[in-house]
Amino acid sequence: MAKRIYFATGNQDKIKEAREILTEYDVEQIKIDLPELQGTPEEVAAEKARLAYGKVKKPVFVDDTGLAFHALNGMPGIYIKHFLHALGHDGLVKLLKGFKDKGATAFASIGYCDGKTTKVFIGRCEGKIVKKQDKGFGFGFGWDPIFSPNGYKGTFATLNSEIKNSISHRKRALDMLHDFLLGK
Amino acid sequence: MAKRIYFATGNQDKIKEAREILTEYDVEQIKIDLPELQGTPEEVAAEKARLAYGKVKKPVFVDDTGLAFHALNGMPGIYIKHFLHALGHDGLVKLLKGFKDKGATAFASIGYCDGKTTKVFIGRCEGKIVKKQDKGFGFGFGWDPIFSPNGYKGTFATLNSEIKNSISHRKRALDMLHDFLLGK
Repeated sequence: MAKRIYFATGNQDKIKEAREILTEYDVEQIKIDLPELQGTPEEVAAEKARLAYGKVKKPVFVDDTGLAFHALNGMPGIYIKHFLHALGHDGLVKLLKGFKDKGATAFASIGYCDGKTTKVFIGRCEGKIVKKQDKGFGFGFGWDPIFSPNGYKGTFATLNSEIKNSISHRKRALDMLHDFLLGK
Repeated sequence: MAKRIYFATGNQDKIKEAREILTEYDVEQIKIDLPELQGTPEEVAAEKARLAYGKVKKPVFVDDTGLAFHALNGMPGIYIKHFLHALGHDGLVKLLKGFKDKGATAFASIGYCDGKTTKVFIGRCEGKIVKKQDKGFGFGFGWDPIFSPNGYKGTFATLNSEIKNSISHRKRALDMLHDFLLGK
């Protein structure tokens, strides 16, 4: 029987993706209220995983995502959703107007806790911030329309989901979790 | 005998200021670990006050501060310390290079909780972001060297502390808390 692991998220797509990667595991969704914390991605993921374990009392992981602008030394990072909400896509692009370096790192931080061990896995996808490009049906998901991964012409919002998922920060973080769980 | 109220802070200067304003109260410092949360200033102050009350079980208040850039629709706001850490003063000024509006609001949010009532008081000081000005002995406190309050030529870092304290966002938030406690 496959070992069970809990994924604390409200997002069905994330569950689906986790099940596709953690093939030896029975990934169970669990919806719990966790605080949104300030801190480094590592600190926040570790603390959220510990809090989740405190509620679930079973091996559990959480995930967070962020967008680090190189010119801003990593900001907005995990605060990107507040910036996107306040500024919109065009405002985020404008934020870099005073800076030559348009590079950005999309990252997913997965925090895992089983009561004994707490681990953080950060998956990264390098790229740059570009003028909004989507498929023309609205804004796309989050900041996807302004993030263009290295090696591709379009943004995350214009790539087909198979390509996107194969290079995404979350995929990489899930792969790292998978290797850890398998003792690799 | 003066009523006792607890102020959850590690900062002695803040205790001193609170005692000067909450004259009818015996302001007691208490040092407790509270998480740094994400959210609106109102949400964060209310939640931190509730968490503080959960630990102290006595009327208690917490305070947070932030710097809202008008051109960025309120960002970085409560995340300003992470931005200051990542970018320094010059980087924060540069952040507004693409924007005409240099206006900013310094704010202090005080969250109060006595077990029955939770209240948030936000004191504001309007001003603008300017090139770094301090008294020449280092960076000054936080973002003081780049915030120039309306009606004054210098920055918070160049004003004498009497003037600064008389117009500051924290003074205003403490005044609001004072009025509330006195039932005004």
